Amino acid sequence: MAETIADLVAEHRAGTTTPAETVARSYARIRERNDPSIFISLRDEAEAIAEAQALSGKDAAALPLYGIPVAIKDNIDVAGLPTTAACPAFAFQPARDATVVAKLRAAGAIVIGKTNLDQFATGLVGVRSPYGVPKNAMRDDLVPGGSSSGSAVAVSAGLVPLSLGTDTAGSGRVPAMLNNIVGLKPSLGLISTAGVLPACRTLDCVSIFALTVDDAAIALQALAGYDEADAYSRKLPLSAPGPLAAPLRLGVPRADQLQFFGDAQSERDYQAALQRFVALGCTPVEFDLAPFDETAKLLYDGPWVAERYLVIRELLKSNPDAVHPVTRGIIEAGAHVTGADTFAALYRLQALRQRSARVFESIDAMLLPTAPTAYTVAELAADPVTLNSRLGVYTNFVNLLDLCGLAVPSTIRDDGIPFGVTLLAPAGHDARLASLGRLFHADTQLTMGASGLPQPPLAAIEPQLGADEIALVVVGAHLSGMALNGELQALNARLLRVTETAPDYQLYALPGSVPPKPGMLRVEAGSGAAIKVEVWALSQAAFGRFVAAIPRPLSIGSVRLADGSLAKGFLVEPIAVTGALDISHYGGWRAFIAATV
Amino acid sequence: MAETIADLVAEHRAGTTTPAETVARSYARIRERNDPSIFISLRDEAEAIAEAQALSGKDAAALPLYGIPVAIKDNIDVAGLPTTAACPAFAFQPARDATVVAKLRAAGAIVIGKTNLDQFATGLVGVRSPYGVPKNAMRDDLVPGGSSSGSAVAVSAGLVPLSLGTDTAGSGRVPAMLNNIVGLKPSLGLISTAGVLPACRTLDCVSIFALTVDDAAIALQALAGYDEADAYSRKLPLSAPGPLAAPLRLGVPRADQLQFFGDAQSERDYQAALQRFVALGCTPVEFDLAPFDETAKLLYDGPWVAERYLVIRELLKSNPDAVHPVTRGIIEAGAHVTGADTFAALYRLQALRQRSARVFESIDAMLLPTAPTAYTVAELAADPVTLNSRLGVYTNFVNLLDLCGLAVPSTIRDDGIPFGVTLLAPAGHDARLASLGRLFHADTQLTMGASGLPQPPLAAIEPQLGADEIALVVVGAHLSGMALNGELQALNARLLRVTETAPDYQLYALPGSVPPKPGMLRVEAGSGAAIKVEVWALSQAAFGRFVAAIPRPLSIGSVRLADGSLAKGFLVEPIAVTGALDISHYGGWRAFIAATV
Repeated sequence: MAETIADLVAEHRAGTTTPAETVARSYARIRERNDPSIFISLRDEAEAIAEAQALSGKDAAALPLYGIPVAIKDNIDVAGLPTTAACPAFAFQPARDATVVAKLRAAGAIVIGKTNLDQFATGLVGVRSPYGVPKNAMRDDLVPGGSSSGSAVAVSAGLVPLSLGTDTAGSGRVPAMLNNIVGLKPSLGLISTAGVLPACRTLDCVSIFALTVDDAAIALQALAGYDEADAYSRKLPLSAPGPLAAPLRLGVPRADQLQFFGDAQSERDYQAALQRFVALGCTPVEFDLAPFDETAKLLYDGPWVAERYLVIRELLKSNPDAVHPVTRGIIEAGAHVTGADTFAALYRLQALRQRSARVFESIDAMLLPTAPTAYTVAELAADPVTLNSRLGVYTNFVNLLDLCGLAVPSTIRDDGIPFGVTLLAPAGHDARLASLGRLFHADTQLTMGASGLPQPPLAAIEPQLGADEIALVVVGAHLSGMALNGELQALNARLLRVTETAPDYQLYALPGSVPPKPGMLRVEAGSGAAIKVEVWALSQAAFGRFVAAIPRPLSIGSVRLADGSLAKGFLVEPIAVTGALDISHYGGWRAFIAATV
Repeated sequence: MAETIADLVAEHRAGTTTPAETVARSYARIRERNDPSIFISLRDEAEAIAEAQALSGKDAAALPLYGIPVAIKDNIDVAGLPTTAACPAFAFQPARDATVVAKLRAAGAIVIGKTNLDQFATGLVGVRSPYGVPKNAMRDDLVPGGSSSGSAVAVSAGLVPLSLGTDTAGSGRVPAMLNNIVGLKPSLGLISTAGVLPACRTLDCVSIFALTVDDAAIALQALAGYDEADAYSRKLPLSAPGPLAAPLRLGVPRADQLQFFGDAQSERDYQAALQRFVALGCTPVEFDLAPFDETAKLLYDGPWVAERYLVIRELLKSNPDAVHPVTRGIIEAGAHVTGADTFAALYRLQALRQRSARVFESIDAMLLPTAPTAYTVAELAADPVTLNSRLGVYTNFVNLLDLCGLAVPSTIRDDGIPFGVTLLAPAGHDARLASLGRLFHADTQLTMGASGLPQPPLAAIEPQLGADEIALVVVGAHLSGMALNGELQALNARLLRVTETAPDYQLYALPGSVPPKPGMLRVEAGSGAAIKVEVWALSQAAFGRFVAAIPRPLSIGSVRLADGSLAKGFLVEPIAVTGALDISHYGGWRAFIAATV
């Protein structure tokens, strides 16, 4: 019986395992784990199994999470279970599922229970909860990380293959690193937060924990979508991860700007991770971390704590002792933030966003440690606020700067402490991070979570056309490595596949064209040659710009490919091939060039 | 000697008037007007004339504001003149021009002086200044409107043909109406605010006053542009105004939601303006004003006053009596705004923005009164805050919702009181508003400002392709009124012109196409027919989507037009015209359809 979402869904669809069996296994493992601090509330097992059985009447192929047990951080509403935010005095019975939970169910997932968290999602450590400290799945003495502690441990310990966290300042990334799993922090507004208890409502998002990047990406595809019930919902592009078409420029901070708080092993592990990305074809590009660092400090010292205060203002007045003392100390400060402070910080943030945007003009993604080091529960107890804040130095700025992030395991040290790295990019580039992160994670050959089990072989994925992308068939000088391919690169085009046309075309060498170009003309179906072509994906705007720049006699029409499909691609006006050399028998422009140079 | 920017620049270029003569006329008129409350500081005349004379060494054709005298609201930095914001105790000598002033000078404009304003740009009335009340140019007893009072009066009174204001809650629109001139409030971030003293920095923009919409649009083209020195600067599309391609859907509030505070004449004038737009081809679409009204109230009661407080916090502590008592009463309230209040208001605003965006899915522009009524200085003195706030009911929400606006004169009543309307659209659609507003203003046949002079004949403008637009030549079913024209409309395409191709083409009726479509094929230059076509402008993304959806045998290539230019347009694959009816002699698809129905 499989461990990953991809494999489990495949087994469920094939019928080799039933969703009910998978759900029952989750409950058995929860009992076996016997850690009462992971779940705050657990759903009735018989009810969950019945829901799994009821899936049998549905179209399994249409359910991307068919029969997948899922754990939900207890600040996200699930109908039928209380929402506590790890504060019993705050608990309420939600009238309905959060949008994201409704989407989970609609995708075929089965909710198992609600997981523990740093109270009110305030913290990166996972120890600030009256429901206890979930044991770190990798090493008992380490903090589990937070605030999404229970959700991260549940996945690492194999209790569920998928869980939801939330992430305001790193709560979906730090616990992923500390439990050797993947933490996907999507672009703000990509997954609805309707029905999620806010921490800082301007910065919150729902995050995804899974054992592999592909699993997290499957969940993201199922959960993303504009939602009118969430004022911060956005219509952002989202494509599935694909092969890397071109070497990516990977932003790396100046060496003197990295901080590891004395953890030399983390420093070495980060450098090793960078070298692994380079070996995978990435080009490191040094950038100035200062504006990002300043933004992280701005979150810590700035007005956003007033957002947390807004959420529990009444409780702090009526029943202050109901709030965890560390949490209360932090959030009470929100009462003293002024409007003037708030706007001053927003101005500074806007300037920092502008600087961040400029950095991302010269890199495709940023590579940082997920956290600079790891702490034990005992270490943290001695200095709960300072050590907590250290864990956030590489995560705090991310939502303020409207970036998406992907935390991926990188190393497990000899002492069993996991280290991980995070890829970051501007909002809307979630798929790019997944495309890169999946290659990296597979290359580490790390075992998954705390399972000791190897990752499944990396699936060969067909590159998918994104929802806002258009496929373009190129025939001549725009082929990879040819004279005009740079035009596609400059437009951020992605190579989808190398194929050939249906045998319906003639190819001509256009006389006098600079650089030399071919022209492809359609003839009667089956009476022409099959021409080798490449299919590239471009955004609508990039495709528009590309088409607008094509000189005559070339045009963009519909080209029949070998698999019978039609795609937009290069054709030639017939007037231009009069007297031109017919090179159809070469079967493609590359072969003709090779033969004639 | 002309009055408008367009005419003056033409005279300067033609040499019939020199920039120095125009500048000297400004100074003469300022002396003649003899109102010491319009300008807070006036530039030395000899220096301004010398600067005008120095223009003679430059390329007049490259200077869109060649020799145009301009007045600058005194919260915008001009090197060499103090910035006072109408508060002598606050005054400072700026080290350099604001970006927008530098752009004015680079475009050939000559700064004449700095104009009076409601102190710290707080107010819509123009009477809150220790420098006195600029006399309303239309009627002495009326308030001039504010906060950009001096700049509006200077244009209306003919002292300068162009002035800059700022607009946070209506300061660039209300005084335009009250002085019978055009007030263009661009999209936030389109004109840099670097070097502009903030009022509410998250909401501020520089605005333009001119006698005609075309003049305002000329200035906007010269002043817009991304500026790294302004953290709120944005890269927004901006095209020049053009002819209206299609009937626009004009949003009109439900009748019971309009408020005129007892001014029945304003109510009638608004209805008359609406009827004029309908006569010009607009389709009224009723919408719910409630979310916009709520947003306006949110500005008034909300935390944004803390932004104003931030600007003069030190002054209020050290020298409170230096601040105008009404202004002080308003801005001091900003000290008591909490961070929690601020975030709560930002959440509500986000929800209102989402509702606003939905309204603009069903309309192309919104038509509102610029202000509900007009007040005299005496009326205002009796109740300075309430009457001021009434003037903003149709302007306060605009910047909060990230809309652009254009205030256009609509009526001059028998009693000499001007009434005006404002067109609103989401940010980035400034050109659409100008395209519509220029037709409307010309149609009113109102005299310009207080000059008593008629507007110049409306220039026949060639529709311009925007910087991010692509021109598309359509030949058949996409022509205006034909079966597939709706596809272009749905993509917000704009008709640029009706023309014909070079005589290089054959046109065929494609057999079996549904709806019926022609195919155009290039033959030897001069050996074919000239085919009637239309040229449409589409955004890059819309063009990309359009091309992607074209079925074969049609393609998009380069089409030679009658004027010799090449543009992207429909071609046909030659295989599809075998046996098709050659209809070239009809000279176009429309003529063929007309002849065969």
